[in-house]
Amino acid sequence: MSEFLIARRQYEPRGPLSLMELDASAVTSVTGVADTESGIAELFPKTARQGLLKIAAGGTNDLTRTTPLRVGAVFSGGQAPGGHNVVGGLFEGIRKLHPDSTLIGFTGGPSGILKNLALPVTQELMDAYRNTGGFDLFGTGRRKLESKEDFATCARIFAQHDLDAFVVVGGDDSNTNAAFLAEYLLDTGSKTRIVGVPKTIDSDLRGPFTETSFGFDTAVRVYAELIANIAKDALSGKKYYHFIRLMGRSASHITLEAALQTRPNIALISEEMARDGKTMRQIVEGLAQVVVERAAAGKNYGVILVPEGLIEFIPEMSSLIADLNEVIAGHKDYIESLRGFTAQIEYLAGRLPRESAATMAGLPIDIQRQLIMDRDSHGNVALSRIETEKLLLELLASHLGEMKSEGHYHGKFSSQTHFLGYEGRCAAPTNFDANYAWSLGLTAAALAASGQTGYLAAVHGLTTPPDQWQAWGVPLVSMLTMERRKGKDKAVIRKTLVDLNGPAFRCFEDARSAWAAGDDYRFAGPIQYFGPADLVDRVPVSLTVQ
Amino acid sequence: MSEFLIARRQYEPRGPLSLMELDASAVTSVTGVADTESGIAELFPKTARQGLLKIAAGGTNDLTRTTPLRVGAVFSGGQAPGGHNVVGGLFEGIRKLHPDSTLIGFTGGPSGILKNLALPVTQELMDAYRNTGGFDLFGTGRRKLESKEDFATCARIFAQHDLDAFVVVGGDDSNTNAAFLAEYLLDTGSKTRIVGVPKTIDSDLRGPFTETSFGFDTAVRVYAELIANIAKDALSGKKYYHFIRLMGRSASHITLEAALQTRPNIALISEEMARDGKTMRQIVEGLAQVVVERAAAGKNYGVILVPEGLIEFIPEMSSLIADLNEVIAGHKDYIESLRGFTAQIEYLAGRLPRESAATMAGLPIDIQRQLIMDRDSHGNVALSRIETEKLLLELLASHLGEMKSEGHYHGKFSSQTHFLGYEGRCAAPTNFDANYAWSLGLTAAALAASGQTGYLAAVHGLTTPPDQWQAWGVPLVSMLTMERRKGKDKAVIRKTLVDLNGPAFRCFEDARSAWAAGDDYRFAGPIQYFGPADLVDRVPVSLTVQ
Repeated sequence: MSEFLIARRQYEPRGPLSLMELDASAVTSVTGVADTESGIAELFPKTARQGLLKIAAGGTNDLTRTTPLRVGAVFSGGQAPGGHNVVGGLFEGIRKLHPDSTLIGFTGGPSGILKNLALPVTQELMDAYRNTGGFDLFGTGRRKLESKEDFATCARIFAQHDLDAFVVVGGDDSNTNAAFLAEYLLDTGSKTRIVGVPKTIDSDLRGPFTETSFGFDTAVRVYAELIANIAKDALSGKKYYHFIRLMGRSASHITLEAALQTRPNIALISEEMARDGKTMRQIVEGLAQVVVERAAAGKNYGVILVPEGLIEFIPEMSSLIADLNEVIAGHKDYIESLRGFTAQIEYLAGRLPRESAATMAGLPIDIQRQLIMDRDSHGNVALSRIETEKLLLELLASHLGEMKSEGHYHGKFSSQTHFLGYEGRCAAPTNFDANYAWSLGLTAAALAASGQTGYLAAVHGLTTPPDQWQAWGVPLVSMLTMERRKGKDKAVIRKTLVDLNGPAFRCFEDARSAWAAGDDYRFAGPIQYFGPADLVDRVPVSLTVQ
Repeated sequence: MSEFLIARRQYEPRGPLSLMELDASAVTSVTGVADTESGIAELFPKTARQGLLKIAAGGTNDLTRTTPLRVGAVFSGGQAPGGHNVVGGLFEGIRKLHPDSTLIGFTGGPSGILKNLALPVTQELMDAYRNTGGFDLFGTGRRKLESKEDFATCARIFAQHDLDAFVVVGGDDSNTNAAFLAEYLLDTGSKTRIVGVPKTIDSDLRGPFTETSFGFDTAVRVYAELIANIAKDALSGKKYYHFIRLMGRSASHITLEAALQTRPNIALISEEMARDGKTMRQIVEGLAQVVVERAAAGKNYGVILVPEGLIEFIPEMSSLIADLNEVIAGHKDYIESLRGFTAQIEYLAGRLPRESAATMAGLPIDIQRQLIMDRDSHGNVALSRIETEKLLLELLASHLGEMKSEGHYHGKFSSQTHFLGYEGRCAAPTNFDANYAWSLGLTAAALAASGQTGYLAAVHGLTTPPDQWQAWGVPLVSMLTMERRKGKDKAVIRKTLVDLNGPAFRCFEDARSAWAAGDDYRFAGPIQYFGPADLVDRVPVSLTVQ
């Protein structure tokens, strides 16, 4: 074990008093019935009429148990820093309520439940994993539990382990499925209660009681460290534009937060492009304008942030992708029988609607290749494999070439591209995330002991010191909304996108023209875990400007 | 200014007593005449007969001045963390020797000397830049000063600023040229003495008195942070092999040090591949063996480090590159007149020697494209643009496909690629690099005041506490060797490659089969600048195993 891990293990996560002294707290319902959207209540006859829960220091010992609690837990989906602290908080929480309580993790993600891959959590394990990054304690996976068969298997496995509650640490889809599982278990007489914990480094699972998800702070701080290093490099060498694509499947929260922390010359926010109906051409013209103006000031370098999900928000690109998915789905075997990219692209060009064929033809050849060669297991275009930063760069370079030949641009344009994603997803959680995740785990313990089901653990007031945070249970059904997916109405938790009227975006909007022209790069350094409080106890900027 | 920079500014770099109290130290010659290689002495009639200098606490006040010193300085070549501390140490050093001494930086690299872009250094500037990363104080550039015309211009500019000494912070080429410039200036009666400071994050400028170059420690620690995060990710998700290419132009020091810090499943060391004459096919077979064995143990994930310079060390690839450079040089205009990659590749295939044509044909199409499309300003293949990690990955994937169809492999193979370079070059220097660079700056000040010329500042004994380090002046001529370049004998400082008989490589060699099979990833965390001494005062592992 490294010196870093040994030192970091000493950190004791902090949380609100109501949670740190869980054995003297109570869970109370503070509202009658949660609002649910039309169509939702009907899907949840048993759990739709639940109210918001508050976990408060009551001194009434409401939560302590005369019998031990038996709780299960699983990680679902992509890694986020702090996952081990959710487990740590949960473990500590149920032990506070009864010293003999048991926590059982299921390994390899949701499929581990179905395969009954159970790992009992011990104090020794938690001591080793506390404050560490990654999900390697249990592993994780992307198996979705949504069928009645899956639910029946879960019920059987939960019964076999005699679980009072089961905690799902997951994103929007996992928590949606958790709501259905909760309803199913209640309906079929299972005693196991379901608790969700919001996890996505993208931070797209926000709500009135969920300001951000755990892990977002850590991941963005790693990206901000690297962006700042790259910006220093640009400023020192003065010869490259750096195009940096940042992880974040749909929402641009990561890119916005990283921009507020590092002050790049340009940060594209997908939601704004979509609102303004920007075409790829218009986006590239916007980039070119900044490059041309900087060149006029003698600056042939800069830093440009690009959110991973961008192309889905550009109308002609999202049409192209939809059309490609349809054509490929209809002729999959034939397309695969064609040898070589050129034959495939020619075949596809003849099958695509005219507009999409034109969009495709205007793309750099590498991107065309990625669009048709890299497909996910369902045969769809693998969006995360599209090198959007290279797409923009090539289109921009060619646009600048035209402008140069017409005498409108006199600079030099050289570039480097970067993708920052896996570099930050498993970093050791910052104090903020370590505390937040731990508090979510304690909240989950309280909810597990409350006898309620179908609740999301929520910790609120995150810009105040941890001891002032408030803990809640939010009915999962209250977060659901009906959405049309693949021709069917489906209850889902909608991803929370960047609010273009919110203070974080406004703050960015006010500053960005100065950033575009200047060299205002901010160098916040790597995450510091030891040292002055203003370095180690930071909160995401997008929360503090709220 | 960020809280990080404000806090980090407080750090006071440490160094050997002989340097911290420079006004009570002396520079003495400890050997008669340095050894020079055959052919070198003739090129340096004035400076070849110089001895090794030692800077020691003498109490004799030998170095203090009755008149102020006037010193110039420049950054040459790629950025390395600690550059600003070299300047800081130099500035402090010459002020210790006389409080009115002046330091003048030339901006934008060596071309800034020719253009007389002078920036006087002030205490305020140094306070702002101390302990920060980047070279943005002066900027940098790659202009080589090697012609008599350049030297004459330098002499004129130096005279104009009345410089007693000039300090070049640069790599092997820059220090070679510094040796010639020193000779020229002495020969032409200039009073300006030349001092070199060894800089390359690649750490390929090693010698008996130069264990590593400044910045290497910081850059590798950033890479190690990210490699460890990625390894955690691999271990949590258990679905990807991560191929990580690491900066380092020729030598594999960075990859070796990063491997020692992080314990990946595989780290390719170019020097070993070259020693063993490994073909690309053999390297890929070696990778496949590890992947197949891990798959048999149920592990379809891993971490593989690839040094940037690898392909130059693989015989058939380096032949191909040489052949391509020659064919392209001979037919540049015609090749550029051919529209499109396919026409170019067909033309080249007909012109390449048969073996190279076969090598080329066996490469993935993207790599073929990079080999012929990305060329540097001299028309040569731009090696740093070759995505070697993708090359290996594609060849490996195809090899595993064959093995699978023959029943020799039953795993799943999915992958992600990464390139870590610019992410670390401008990080804020670690304590080690902050101290080392500061000490080099102080050493340069001592050499500047010594009246000697053509010396490299060297600080030695780096595994001991900084106050025990020793400061030296090493004659640049003693580092030169004759090498045949472009058909001519040329005096150069040869890049120091990884010593395959040295303790660092041996240590790696002993451990790697365990690392290949296991999940021994070591998580050292991001650089910590505050906190426990065993975290903040680390030394590169490859030095401590010496």
